[in-house]
Amino acid sequence: MDRVSTGIKGLDEVLKGGLPKARTVLVVGSPGSGKTTFAVQFLVGGAKKGEAGLYVSLDEKPERVKADLSSFGWKLESLEETGNLTFIDATQLRRPWQRIAEPLGKENPVSLTLPELTLPALVRTITKVAAEEGTQRIVLDPITSFMLRYVAEPKRRRALLLLFDALESTGCSCVVTSELRTALLARRFQLEEYLSQGVVLLHTMVHNGNVVRGLQVEKMRGISHDDQLRPYQIGSEGIEVFPKDRVF
Amino acid sequence: MDRVSTGIKGLDEVLKGGLPKARTVLVVGSPGSGKTTFAVQFLVGGAKKGEAGLYVSLDEKPERVKADLSSFGWKLESLEETGNLTFIDATQLRRPWQRIAEPLGKENPVSLTLPELTLPALVRTITKVAAEEGTQRIVLDPITSFMLRYVAEPKRRRALLLLFDALESTGCSCVVTSELRTALLARRFQLEEYLSQGVVLLHTMVHNGNVVRGLQVEKMRGISHDDQLRPYQIGSEGIEVFPKDRVF
Amino acid sequence: MDRVSTGIKGLDEVLKGGLPKARTVLVVGSPGSGKTTFAVQFLVGGAKKGEAGLYVSLDEKPERVKADLSSFGWKLESLEETGNLTFIDATQLRRPWQRIAEPLGKENPVSLTLPELTLPALVRTITKVAAEEGTQRIVLDPITSFMLRYVAEPKRRRALLLLFDALESTGCSCVVTSELRTALLARRFQLEEYLSQGVVLLHTMVHNGNVVRGLQVEKMRGISHDDQLRPYQIGSEGIEVFPKDRVF
Amino acid sequence: MDRVSTGIKGLDEVLKGGLPKARTVLVVGSPGSGKTTFAVQFLVGGAKKGEAGLYVSLDEKPERVKADLSSFGWKLESLEETGNLTFIDATQLRRPWQRIAEPLGKENPVSLTLPELTLPALVRTITKVAAEEGTQRIVLDPITSFMLRYVAEPKRRRALLLLFDALESTGCSCVVTSELRTALLARRFQLEEYLSQGVVLLHTMVHNGNVVRGLQVEKMRGISHDDQLRPYQIGSEGIEVFPKDRVF
Amino acid sequence: MDRVSTGIKGLDEVLKGGLPKARTVLVVGSPGSGKTTFAVQFLVGGAKKGEAGLYVSLDEKPERVKADLSSFGWKLESLEETGNLTFIDATQLRRPWQRIAEPLGKENPVSLTLPELTLPALVRTITKVAAEEGTQRIVLDPITSFMLRYVAEPKRRRALLLLFDALESTGCSCVVTSELRTALLARRFQLEEYLSQGVVLLHTMVHNGNVVRGLQVEKMRGISHDDQLRPYQIGSEGIEVFPKDRVF
Amino acid sequence: MDRVSTGIKGLDEVLKGGLPKARTVLVVGSPGSGKTTFAVQFLVGGAKKGEAGLYVSLDEKPERVKADLSSFGWKLESLEETGNLTFIDATQLRRPWQRIAEPLGKENPVSLTLPELTLPALVRTITKVAAEEGTQRIVLDPITSFMLRYVAEPKRRRALLLLFDALESTGCSCVVTSELRTALLARRFQLEEYLSQGVVLLHTMVHNGNVVRGLQVEKMRGISHDDQLRPYQIGSEGIEVFPKDRVF
Repeated sequence: MDRVSTGIKGLDEVLKGGLPKARTVLVVGSPGSGKTTFAVQFLVGGAKKGEAGLYVSLDEKPERVKADLSSFGWKLESLEETGNLTFIDATQLRRPWQRIAEPLGKENPVSLTLPELTLPALVRTITKVAAEEGTQRIVLDPITSFMLRYVAEPKRRRALLLLFDALESTGCSCVVTSELRTALLARRFQLEEYLSQGVVLLHTMVHNGNVVRGLQVEKMRGISHDDQLRPYQIGSEGIEVFPKDRVF
Repeated sequence: MDRVSTGIKGLDEVLKGGLPKARTVLVVGSPGSGKTTFAVQFLVGGAKKGEAGLYVSLDEKPERVKADLSSFGWKLESLEETGNLTFIDATQLRRPWQRIAEPLGKENPVSLTLPELTLPALVRTITKVAAEEGTQRIVLDPITSFMLRYVAEPKRRRALLLLFDALESTGCSCVVTSELRTALLARRFQLEEYLSQGVVLLHTMVHNGNVVRGLQVEKMRGISHDDQLRPYQIGSEGIEVFPKDRVF
Repeated sequence: MDRVSTGIKGLDEVLKGGLPKARTVLVVGSPGSGKTTFAVQFLVGGAKKGEAGLYVSLDEKPERVKADLSSFGWKLESLEETGNLTFIDATQLRRPWQRIAEPLGKENPVSLTLPELTLPALVRTITKVAAEEGTQRIVLDPITSFMLRYVAEPKRRRALLLLFDALESTGCSCVVTSELRTALLARRFQLEEYLSQGVVLLHTMVHNGNVVRGLQVEKMRGISHDDQLRPYQIGSEGIEVFPKDRVF
Repeated sequence: MDRVSTGIKGLDEVLKGGLPKARTVLVVGSPGSGKTTFAVQFLVGGAKKGEAGLYVSLDEKPERVKADLSSFGWKLESLEETGNLTFIDATQLRRPWQRIAEPLGKENPVSLTLPELTLPALVRTITKVAAEEGTQRIVLDPITSFMLRYVAEPKRRRALLLLFDALESTGCSCVVTSELRTALLARRFQLEEYLSQGVVLLHTMVHNGNVVRGLQVEKMRGISHDDQLRPYQIGSEGIEVFPKDRVF
Repeated sequence: MDRVSTGIKGLDEVLKGGLPKARTVLVVGSPGSGKTTFAVQFLVGGAKKGEAGLYVSLDEKPERVKADLSSFGWKLESLEETGNLTFIDATQLRRPWQRIAEPLGKENPVSLTLPELTLPALVRTITKVAAEEGTQRIVLDPITSFMLRYVAEPKRRRALLLLFDALESTGCSCVVTSELRTALLARRFQLEEYLSQGVVLLHTMVHNGNVVRGLQVEKMRGISHDDQLRPYQIGSEGIEVFPKDRVF
Repeated sequence: MDRVSTGIKGLDEVLKGGLPKARTVLVVGSPGSGKTTFAVQFLVGGAKKGEAGLYVSLDEKPERVKADLSSFGWKLESLEETGNLTFIDATQLRRPWQRIAEPLGKENPVSLTLPELTLPALVRTITKVAAEEGTQRIVLDPITSFMLRYVAEPKRRRALLLLFDALESTGCSCVVTSELRTALLARRFQLEEYLSQGVVLLHTMVHNGNVVRGLQVEKMRGISHDDQLRPYQIGSEGIEVFPKDRVF
């Protein structure tokens, strides 16, 4: 199976060569574990080698995401200018009020009714942009709120499968992020961990009063990989995994 | 009781001779624990000895499953060509949109209503194909999403019994996979563990900061077996169990 | 209080003489813990001494149960021939489709509606057969799915009491099996443990990476007994308890 | 505050003189922990000193309760004959089918609809019998199924208070038993523990693979008492508490 | 901020001077932890210095509360006679049947419908009595069942705030008690802990087989305090806290 | 990214320079952990340097908040007089009865129906005041009860995003407080931890019988920071964090 380099120091070694090419991998993490950093670093890793990347932002506005990551020295703007990095603002799907120019007021109340976002609309947009831009890597960050629209588990399963099929049909290597709901001790496995072909967990644990960060390749179909929990840091150049160390 | 060799290194020793012949065994595992690898390796083990195997895929398309397992050197294609291995794509039951040739759009919205899949339809198909192909081993991978259609536990119990009866009436040795919902510590036993005649658990545990994989034959009616938790690895030739070692 | 020997090696010693005669005892266990083995071994123990036993099968067909236990060398067939062992197939109550001779099909869909099984019907059958056969020991294996029909706890309590009263009115020594829902650590006590006059727990625990089997006489009204957790094995002659050992 | 001796060896010492007189104490315990033994031993302790006792049986028929306790040598029959011990069978309230003389059948189906038992009816009966018999000690064993009729917590609280008020108005010293729902580790406090003036807990714990029995006077309004967890055994003369020992 | 002495030995030291004056403090405790003892001891501490106290009883009748506390030698009757201590029986709000003189019967069934108690009625009564009696300390014991009337959390929050505002408007120093729902290990924080200006926790823990009592000032707005868990006992003169000791 | 000094001793060092400027940070804490102290100290830190601060009080009346914090010697009144600190009483939104001048009574019952508070009304007020006052720092304390109005998680997510967008559009540096629902051991991550750009956790843990306070910067987008759990105290000058120490 062909691989793509993750652009994350140490992670290719854990994966014994990189992520599977043209596949979708899920990154599940606790708050502040670095899911967005992971996802954009993956795109930057490709963009630097000339592989066009597409970041679909579902919760944060792209400007904000870029500002948040500005300390890493990834030169996102120049990658955008060369066309190697494209940001799609899909937050409007969840923030219909942004379309409203006037200040909020009684005459202009914000309705919290969910907008008419359909899964096909999202899928269509991604497919179209990816085709036009010659995209090779895609990121969806995060899918959690999107999936919450499907209350019944069978429907959520089908929506996820549809989404994963659509991503796969683009031929791109994809990273999708998702929120971890419970800490390690009371762990319940999440639906998307089963439906994904690959899952990378980003844990933040409290061990003996210390906060410990650990990355685990829980699942990666089609490739042999290190399945140990490995320490990682978020440093000045992004995420760095220590493939030979133990978390404690 | 007659046995069939599992084709999984070390597992026949744990089972003191192999799985019971013409029975259905459940493989329950956490994400990335190797349920699909286990199931196909079981078919390959038979196919290599001339026993025709049937893989019924419920979540992943067979092409994908085959690609995922291509690194193991099992030569699935040649086994297919000799008729010793057959893949049925039953994912259409859960992905009705695949029938739609046109691109997704407003005029062509994807409805997420559940399709008219009936348990008898699945049962009939399997029975028919197994009879035509002279099948001796059958795999259903996985049954989780299928079972979720039955919300009330009494109905889910009956559907499972019906399915197990149907598999048994084929006279084949069968492996059915299922998702583990909770980690070891907060363990609740799952319905299907009680209704199956045999259960193999594939655990992934975090112990002292290490990820540990352990296989446990939780239940195997009719045969005496080792009930200890045994370490296993997913290596270059598939799953290997270490029947004399301890997990930690 | 009169006792009956359990036929299970070591258990009579734990019970300081055997189970109470003409009483109903509940055996609660995790998957694969040997509930059915326990129950039939109890009948065989009596049958060998000329006490007629009745096995009422609620989930598995009697042929299957007999096949599963064939490795123990209990000579179930000869016990059946002498009339000392009778199997009742009550699974039809839960598998109405077995009555249908034709293959499944669209014209012959399997409805999963629950059949018109009533508690009195079960009770009547047992009472009648026990009287005709001169039965001295009765087993119901398992009652879990039956009890699930009563969703509200007060109704489930009443159904259980009715069942226990009916068993008792037969004058037989009875064993009823039930599924354990949660592992030891997150233990919630189950309704039937409170309503039974005697409860034997069959635990399967993971301790320091080892699987440990332990039998505990949680409750046994009317007799003094050892209430410690004692290790047990399922060996070539059935269950053996080690009344002087500790589980770890 | 006046005290009554419990009749349970070692317990008066834990209570520094016995239970408070003319009060109601709740005994909460796990299955097989000896709740009924505790309750009847309390009555026997009084009856031997000439204090008339009344046992109201809510789940088990009095004959059965008496048989279960026959091994303790308490001579319940002679205490009954002298009028110092009275058993009321209130199980009919929960077993309406006992009134039916004919065998169960289609023409005579058992309805599982709850009977028209009202709390006042129970209260009236107890009050009336206690007055007629000159009762000084009353036991209700157990109240769990009775309380389950009130689904909403505010109603359950009020029913419990009404019951406790009624018991108190008799001027008798009362013991009410209740089922413990969860094991020690995942402990949630139960409603009745808050509404009772006194609570005695009977725990059965698994500690390092040993089953350990411990009695704890969790609460006892109006009197100073030992609040430590003390080991107890159910021996040939009933419950014995070891007020100077530790459980482990 | 002005302080009031708690009257509880050792607690003023933990609080570095006493409870904040004219504030409402919540005492949350497990069954038998001494919530009522704490609350009345607080009133007695004031009454002995001439500060009039008002005890509003919501679950237990005042006569019962006084009897329960009679062993402490607080001379509640003489404090009542001098007008320094007033008991209000607000249990009628929860026991409407007390108004009924006739014996319970079919003609006079007890309806368990909740009475027309309104929060304003309670607030009005307290305000009125406090004004007439020149009250300086108020106790509400306990508010749990009262709060259960509000099922939706937003409504419960608002009712609590209304109650706390009303207590504060009296200018009195107030103690409100509440039931702890879960043991320390599976701790979920309760609504009222957030809405109170001060929270004192009374824990009863089982540690290495020992029952340990610990008091913790979880929260006390406006004053600096010791936030450690301190052992306490309920002795012959009420609660005593050991401000320099550790629980274990 | 520009920073603002937190005004909390030791915290700027943990944050390697202060909070991100013009961003919204969430402070999540257990009862009594010092959320309000943190929030106001942040405003005071700015006000002392001439940066106008706005405190929006959602649960407690501003007079109460100021009194509670009076022991810290922050001279809140003089900061108010110079216009560097403004308190908005938004509790009326949750306490409509405060508008009612007459005493509570039957003719004037308090309805607990939720008032017509709309999110836009809150947002409008904050925006308007911030613009008029030239505000640079804003605090919302706490948002918990406000968020509880949205029962469905998707709606709660959208309301939170709307609120965070509105705060950000003011150009101010903002702190929003929220209640922690579960203790560390049974930790479930809360919605707002995912939707915030920065999260500071204030834990109160019981470790070996000691109460330990620990601050953890769980998440802080855009800046590199220390992610360890650091001890903190609430002393005479407010919160002090010890950036070089461990909690235990």
